[in-house]
This record gives sequence, C-alpha cells and structure tokens, in this order.
Amino acid sequence: MRELFQQELQELRDGLVAISEKVASATERAVTAFNNSDVAVAEQVIAEDHVIDDAVKELDEKAIAILARQSPVASDLRQVVSTLRISASLERMGDLATHLAQLARYRFPEKVAPEGIRPTFKKMGKHDIEMAGLVMKLLKNPSEKTIDKIRELDDEIDELHLSVFETVLSEEFVAGNVSVVDATLASRYLERFADHGVSIAKKVQYLLTGEWDAASHD
Amino acid sequence: MRELFQQELQELRDGLVAISEKVASATERAVTAFNNSDVAVAEQVIAEDHVIDDAVKELDEKAIAILARQSPVASDLRQVVSTLRISASLERMGDLATHLAQLARYRFPEKVAPEGIRPTFKKMGKHDIEMAGLVMKLLKNPSEKTIDKIRELDDEIDELHLSVFETVLSEEFVAGNVSVVDATLASRYLERFADHGVSIAKKVQYLLTGEWDAASHD
Repeated sequence: MRELFQQELQELRDGLVAISEKVASATERAVTAFNNSDVAVAEQVIAEDHVIDDAVKELDEKAIAILARQSPVASDLRQVVSTLRISASLERMGDLATHLAQLARYRFPEKVAPEGIRPTFKKMGKHDIEMAGLVMKLLKNPSEKTIDKIRELDDEIDELHLSVFETVLSEEFVAGNVSVVDATLASRYLERFADHGVSIAKKVQYLLTGEWDAASHD
Repeated sequence: MRELFQQELQELRDGLVAISEKVASATERAVTAFNNSDVAVAEQVIAEDHVIDDAVKELDEKAIAILARQSPVASDLRQVVSTLRISASLERMGDLATHLAQLARYRFPEKVAPEGIRPTFKKMGKHDIEMAGLVMKLLKNPSEKTIDKIRELDDEIDELHLSVFETVLSEEFVAGNVSVVDATLASRYLERFADHGVSIAKKVQYLLTGEWDAASHD
C-alpha cells in the first residue's frame, strides 16, 4: 500500500514534468511564430493548446483520486496540493503562449511588433523560453539554485516589460495604434508568463521547506 | 467528530463568501477610482489588496488542515478542493481590481480613458461590479440560475472588450499612445476579471453536479 502510494506520488511529479515539457515546446513555437510572423507555426500552437489543458485535467483528477484514496498527511499532502496548484500555473503558461501565437496570426502578414521595439521583444521571448526551461528543470530536480535563477530571470523580464512602455510612450516612437495595442498586449503576455514561473518556484519552495509563507498565490 | 467536520466545511464556505465581499468592495472602489480619476480611492484599493491576499492564505491553510485531519472523500473532498481553487480566482480578481486602481493613480490628474471610449469603460466597470456581486451571491447560494447569469454577463463583457479595440483601431480615434496603452490594459484587466467569475461559476457547478468536465481551469 505504502509502496503503491509512493509510486502514485512519483506519477504526479512525472505528470508535472511532462506538462512542463509541452509548455516549453509551445513557448518556443509561439515565440518563433511571434518573431517571424509564421502563421503556420502560430496555428499549430493554437490548435494544440487543448493537449496541455487535457493533460492538466487528467493530472488533477489523479491528484484528487489520491487525496480520496490515500488520505495523505504532512509532506505527502503538501505534494498533492502543490500538484494542483502547479498544474494550474502550467496551464496558464500554455494559455499565454497561445495568446502570443494568436497575436501573430491576427496581424499576419504584418509583423506584430513595430521595428523599433522588435529587439526588446526578441529578448523577452528568449527569456520566456528560458523561463519555461527552468520550470521544467525545477520540476525534474527541485533546487534552491534553480528557484533563485527563476526569480532573477523574472526581474529581467519585468525590466524589459517596463522598457516596452518607455519606448512606446517616447516621442520618437511613431507607429499606428494597432502597433501600440499589439505591443502592449504582447508585453503583458510575456510578463505574465514569467510571473507564473515565479509562482511555480514558490510552490516548489514550499515543498522543499514546508514554509507556506513564500508560497502565496500571485 | 462528524458534526465538527460539517462545521469546518461551513467555515470554508463562509470564508469564501467573506473574501468575495472584500473583492466586491475593492471592485466597486477600483471602478470609481478609474472612472473619476480619484487617486485617494485608488490608493485605498492598492493599500488594502493584501487584506484579500491574507484572507485567502488563511482560508487555504484551513482547507489544507481539514484535508490532513479529516481525510474527506466524495462530495466533502470536492468541496475542500474547490475552496482552494475558488480562493485562487478570488485573489486574482482582487489583483485585477488593484491593477485598475494603479492605472488610475499612474495617470492622475489625467483621466485614464480618452473621451470617445469612456462610455464603454463605464459599462465594463459596471458589469465587473455586477460580476463581483453575482460571484458573492453564487457563493452564498449556489444555483444554476446564477451560474447562467454569470456566463451571460461574461459574454457581454467580452463584446465590450472587442469594441474597445474596434474603437481604438478605427481611423476616427485620435489620441496619444499613452491613451492607447491605457485603454488596452484597462480593457484586458476588466475582461480577465470577468473570466475569473466564470471560472468560479464552473467550480461551483462542479460542486453542484459532480461533473468535472465543465470545471476545467481557464
């Protein structure tokens, strides 16, 4: 019984890793679609979002079944509850990657970001891909070091997010309203994506330390 | 023991209602701050966001303690798990109300929304206040009727959200980039707020019907 239970907990961990791999793949493709106005790749990301959603739903059901059957306590209980929370964040990351792909598709054949701001978005996109990779790494091998890296990366993304607005609101920036809307939405999506990475890091920290304080929603 | 347990479940329900009341109050004030560029009210909303966050954290701890001590199954388990999910959505609604208040504060003494689009934002704000009220009502008295109303209201808010972009992207719309950025962000916040209302409605529906299908994250 105990052995079965440990195996079930391992399945939850593996399930989160598998979903984070799907999110990382979607993120890479969404950023490519966004940078290159590649509508075929964009449509692929959009069409496959439900795969992440379905995997999350399945994992959640498994977690709830474990709660019902095994009545875990202490650190085992923490792990099951954290699974439910981390899966919710992963699902949102998938949604945000999809939103980015949708922006690319809407504006096709135009590029989403106007000339002057494209390098900033390239950096943000690269950082979001890195964030997805760090989340995957963290779920495979929870470590304080990876948690710190996630926080640092989020700070960099926040700075780039602010710099997008500085650019857009500067007098030198001349572009149509459609560019301003797109830049605003894209930057918001890319920034929120990273927030969810931090949110997952906090939840893993809670698992490592048992400290709930750092693990509040955000 | 059983009686204590039922009392604890009731405490979870009451806790959600109490938080939804705080969210409704924050929403009303955030919308007022936004419509009237009332910086004092905006700062109040921003300063008090942590009250919602703290209440959510406390309720979540209570729910996890119940899982550990009572090992609930079937509909009792569903209720505890749903509490964790609904509280997360309520917290995000509080965050979004705060974001709206922050926009009002940043632009003070200017108004956030440019002239031509203000009536649309007034409607969206009114709808978001109504959404917060419906969520409160639903948590007090779960009913299919209130769930339907929440879905209908969300559709209306989505339409207004689209109409904001139509207005901003029309040739007649002449305003600085700052107005375009603000309108884009405000509309996104108001629209996401309503999404969380629907998300809560789905979770309550899951409690009413036991059907997990309609209760996916979103």
